[in-house]
This record gives sequence, structure tokens and C-alpha cells, in this order.
Amino acid sequence: NYKELSKIVIGVCGGDGIGPAITSQAQRVLEYLLADDIKSGKIQFKVIDGLTIERRAAEDAAIPPAVLEELKECHVILKGPTTTPRKGDPWPNVESANVAMRKELDLFANVRPVRIPEQGIDWTFYRENTEGAYAVGSKGFHVTEDLGVDFTVVTSQGTERIIRAAFDFAKTNGKTRVTAVTKANIIKTTDGKFLDMFREIAKEYPDITADDWYIDIMTAKLVDEKRRKDFQVLVLPNLYGDILTDEAAEFQGGVGTAGSANIGKRYAMFEAIHGSAPRMVDEGRDIYADPCSVIRAGAMLLAHIGYTAESEKLYKALDICTITEKKLVITGRNTGATSAEFADYLMSTIEKL
Amino acid sequence: NYKELSKIVIGVCGGDGIGPAITSQAQRVLEYLLADDIKSGKIQFKVIDGLTIERRAAEDAAIPPAVLEELKECHVILKGPTTTPRKGDPWPNVESANVAMRKELDLFANVRPVRIPEQGIDWTFYRENTEGAYAVGSKGFHVTEDLGVDFTVVTSQGTERIIRAAFDFAKTNGKTRVTAVTKANIIKTTDGKFLDMFREIAKEYPDITADDWYIDIMTAKLVDEKRRKDFQVLVLPNLYGDILTDEAAEFQGGVGTAGSANIGKRYAMFEAIHGSAPRMVDEGRDIYADPCSVIRAGAMLLAHIGYTAESEKLYKALDICTITEKKLVITGRNTGATSAEFADYLMSTIEKL
Ligand SMILES: CC(C)[C@H](C(=O)O)[C@@H](O)C(=O)O
Ligand SMILES: CC(C)[C@H](C(=O)O)[C@@H](O)C(=O)O
Repeated sequence: NYKELSKIVIGVCGGDGIGPAITSQAQRVLEYLLADDIKSGKIQFKVIDGLTIERRAAEDAAIPPAVLEELKECHVILKGPTTTPRKGDPWPNVESANVAMRKELDLFANVRPVRIPEQGIDWTFYRENTEGAYAVGSKGFHVTEDLGVDFTVVTSQGTERIIRAAFDFAKTNGKTRVTAVTKANIIKTTDGKFLDMFREIAKEYPDITADDWYIDIMTAKLVDEKRRKDFQVLVLPNLYGDILTDEAAEFQGGVGTAGSANIGKRYAMFEAIHGSAPRMVDEGRDIYADPCSVIRAGAMLLAHIGYTAESEKLYKALDICTITEKKLVITGRNTGATSAEFADYLMSTIEKL
Repeated sequence: NYKELSKIVIGVCGGDGIGPAITSQAQRVLEYLLADDIKSGKIQFKVIDGLTIERRAAEDAAIPPAVLEELKECHVILKGPTTTPRKGDPWPNVESANVAMRKELDLFANVRPVRIPEQGIDWTFYRENTEGAYAVGSKGFHVTEDLGVDFTVVTSQGTERIIRAAFDFAKTNGKTRVTAVTKANIIKTTDGKFLDMFREIAKEYPDITADDWYIDIMTAKLVDEKRRKDFQVLVLPNLYGDILTDEAAEFQGGVGTAGSANIGKRYAMFEAIHGSAPRMVDEGRDIYADPCSVIRAGAMLLAHIGYTAESEKLYKALDICTITEKKLVITGRNTGATSAEFADYLMSTIEKL
């Protein structure tokens, strides 16, 4: 129902590392596609700075409060990668900005499509995005110096909404199979609940085949070139979604090629699923960073807000530029094209469609 | 130091489903290879029945106490698959016999080799086998009907021994790299401790390169045909070991081709990593079940108890029978060879080596 709004505010939150360099190119492409509606005032872009590791560390916050306020003024957000400190990094241990944003904006469905048309692969992953092994963040604790505990949390409400989202997507898009992936034989309470609810809810969708597998064997099934194309929609608790979508994206060409949609009732955020590559910035190579993943996230954003034709144009042009024609290749170094050159190439390709 | 024992007792615990059919063939092959030492009384086989789902359900025990006593009378155990009840099965919810045996016999290292010589792949996975997400079994609980919690547990002792086992294996076998796989950016307390200890212990092995990756991106790295062969020894918390080894085994030809060693200070157990396939038994097809995985487990057992030459012979003959010659093919149906025919073929191949 975005079409009914008098104005749609698209936040562009560059994150850090190569993020600002690539999201600004994605913004150029979106502005090009939405030019008329920007002119009419229907669409407004809002650039949100400050989601950098330096500022997060200084304010000791996964997302600085002022940045969070700005994010909440948008309807949808295009987000670049953000740095999560690792042991040994110079930053104190602030939590992942991704994870915090998913929770703060209640973006419960992480939707990740993986398509390899020539192999007949067209998977859509519905990853639960706010609970599971990610629920308590750093609130696990050491009972003694030698004994540490972490928690996995499941709620009925959190589980029901992601499972329904997966089945509803399947139904609306003519899919005939939804597959749940858990480790309910071992993680009995939380994954058990997820699987039980999946089986219950499946009964309401009698035209859709519902099956389920354990995550260990599922990682093997994705490798099986004969059978894997039979999977269509997959629904998974947070951690398994994290794991399985990286494997799946690799078959498509790597995490750099995949975008990710984080959808809630009120907000939606679209992001690249690769990292912030701070080393490229240190070496002055960020202008050569590949913007494809975040541009793909932009195409998902367009579809989400109802600009279906524009979204399809963008997907088509991306395929031409990265698969069919490849007139410009991004290598990440000065041997390749810059982000800006790629965006130009993409826009001239759209022009010709 | 098995060689120093006056007698080595090898338990053969068939489990259920196709387990008894395939382990009895594996036993025939081992008896053939160890004939002299069986005659001299140095080696004794002990068949252990009763680890069936019917009996476990009747006694409401993951492992019936009498069976556990028998297992403890052995030095090493060859184990067939055991059935873990799933929701909807006619059995009450007894815990996994595998998992119980790992805990009861304190088999802390689950060692899974994956080799694809023609691709240069020679991986050895050291999976922590007694704690992590598997520690508390069904002791997770519902706080309310709508809120469930599970636990992940790490101990210093449990972590240290698996990491040292991986580094010691690397050192003894001329490996130059050990890789830890965690999700320490999210599962901060338990995986964080695992990663911290890995980095500390790595300092004691200055000739070995130690690196670490997150489990999500690691599942993608195993797909990357250019880089994956560079991994050598990998050490992982329980759940990630479970997940990653199934993916890895698939590249080698499926979980049916892989064996798994479960090693503790006092006991060691070797098993097939596939399931018990009760449907094959129902349909009277268990004599056609493929014994390769449990025979491979037998080859690991031989190496473990110091029968290196016999173990190598067995590996070589397995390669000839399943890769090079393939005179007999097991299809799982009466179109293929039986387990017994395969064992005969294997023994006649060993004879000719
Ligand atoms: C960066 C990390 C916190 C994040 C996650 O674990 O969810 C990433 O892997 C992802 O999949 O978006
Ligand atoms: C059967 C199951 C309990 C077991 C596990 O999760 O450890 C299996 O997947 C394995 O890897 O041995």
C-alpha cells in the first residue's frame, strides 16, 4: 500500500567501509529510475550518515540514538554494510548494527532470493530475523570462568509470523512447496516449537506441499545438482537462515551477488550481504568497490514499494551488465571499472531497454 | 597404546533399521583382516544387541543401562545407525542414542575425514562432541506457552581438549593449517570462548598457520572449487561440526560414503554417518543396504587401534571396489548387489592386493 502514501521516504544509510561509496552509486541508479516521482515529490531520498564503527564505538551503541531516529523517519531503507568489531580490532565490543536494526525496527522477515536460471534454481529463503540464537545478543554469561552459557529463544508470535509470511509468499507467487529447516532432533524446545508450528500452519495451505529437513543434511541437499532445483521457498530459524543463505548465494556467484530484504510490519530495510571491507578504504580502493549487491538490494526495494516495472528493468539490466555483456568488469582494483563507471554503464543499459 | 594391551575387545553394536545388516558385513571384513590376531586371542569381537528404538522406548532410555554396561566392556566400538524418534513417529521422545553415547563414554572428539584425491581435497574435521548446543538435550524449557528457551554450553576443559586434539593431529600428520569455525560475532559467550582459546592455544604451535571463519561464510568457502582445497584441519563447536561435515561429505559422494570417529580418553566409537532407513527393513530390502560407510568406519577403527597396514589395505580395496573397478554396484534394491556380496567382493579384492 505504499502507492497510497502521498510521499515515500527512502533512507540511504551508507554504513561504513566501502558502504558509502557503493550505496551512493545505488542511489544514483534509483534516482534515475524514479526521476519523475522524485520531481513530483512522491519520492524523497534521505541520506543518513553516522552509522560508522567510530561513532558507534564512541557512543557505545550498536546504532547511535540520533541515527535510529533518522532511520525511523523513513518508510524504507537502503543500507550499506556496517562493521562488526572482531576480537583484536581497536574498537570496543559494540553489537552488530545489522542485528540491532532488525530488532529495533522489528524487521522480522529476512528474505533472500537466489536465482540461477540456467540451472533451474529459483529459491526464496525466509529467515526469521529477530529471535533464535540472535535474541539475547551479548547477554549470555559465564557461570564460572570455565563455564559459559548462551541462549536461544523462540516465541509463538515470532515463529508464526515468519512461517505465515513464507506460505503467503508461496501462495501469491504460484509456488507449490515450502520447506522448513531446523535441528529439532537436538534443539528440542525452540526448533521443536518452530517445526510444530510449521506443521500446524501448513494445514491451512492445502495446495502447498510442506516438508522439513534438518539443517545438517540440508546443507548437503543444496549441493546435489539433481535435486536442489526442486526446493522453492525455505523457512528457517535465524541462525540456520544465516548459514544456509551464504552457502546458497555462493552457487549464484558469491555473497557479493546477493541482496537481502529485511521486512517488518512498519519498516523495511534492504541491504548488501557482504562486509564493509575496511582494507579497501585504507588502500584508497573504495571507488573500485563492486556496487552490485547493494544495487540488487535496491531492485528488491523498488519491488517492495510497488515500482514493479522499474524493479524488473533494473534486474534485467543487471543481468545484461554482469552476465550477458560484461562490457565493464569490476575487479576491486584499479585494473577494473569504478563503482561510478559501473553505475553509468547500468543506466545506459536501462536507457536502451 | 592398544598394541600393549593383552587383548583388545571390539564391540559391534548394530543399532537398528539396516544397522545390524550392514555392521555384520563390516564385522566379516574386519575378522578377515584380523584373522591371525583373533586366533591368538589378541582380538575379540563382542556383538552388542538391544540398541533398538523399540527397547529404548520401552525402557525410556537413550541407551538401555544393560547395553551401556556391555559397551563399557569394550575398548573400541563399531556402531551402526540408530533411530532418533521424530515428531509423528510411534515412539515416545527418547534422546538420540548417538548423542547419549558420545556423552556417556566421554567421546569428546568427533573426527570426520573427507578426501577427494582427484580434486586435491583432504580435510579432517575435529568436531567438539559433548557440549555446545548439544549439551543440555531436552532440558530446554518453555517459560510460558509462547516463549521457549534452549541453552548452549561451553567449558574451558571441553574446548581446550578438542582444540589441542586438532593441533596435535595436524602436527603429527605434517599438516600446516588449522582453521576454527565459529559464529563468535553473534554467539558471543560460548563461541567467543572457543575462538579465544583457539587463538591462545595456536601460539603453542608456531609452525602451524591458524585462521578462523564464521560458519555462514565457511559453508560458502567449501563450495569454492579454487580455494577449498587449501583447508586442511578444521575445528568446530558441536553444531557447526554437525552442519559443515554433512556439506563436506556431499562433495565426496554423500553422507553414505563417510565414516565418523568418536574418540575419548578411554573409549572410541566408529560409526556410519547415515540414518537407519527403517523403510528398507519394512520392505525387506535391508540385505541390499550399502555397508560402505560403516566399513569405512571400520577402517578408521583399525588405524586407531594400531593396525595401520590392515587399515590401509581396506581403504585401498574400498577405493578399487567403489571408484576404480565398480564390478558390483549397490543400488539399495534387488537390482543391485547385496551387502554380503559386496563384502565378498571387497575381501577378494584385498586378497589380490
Ligand atoms: C554480519 C552478521 C552479524 C550478519 C548475521 O549474522 O546475520 C550477516 O552474516 C548476515 O547474514 O546478514
Ligand atoms: C542423528 C543426529 C543426532 C546426529 C547429530 O546431530 O550429531 C547426526 O546428524 C550426526 O552428525 O552424527
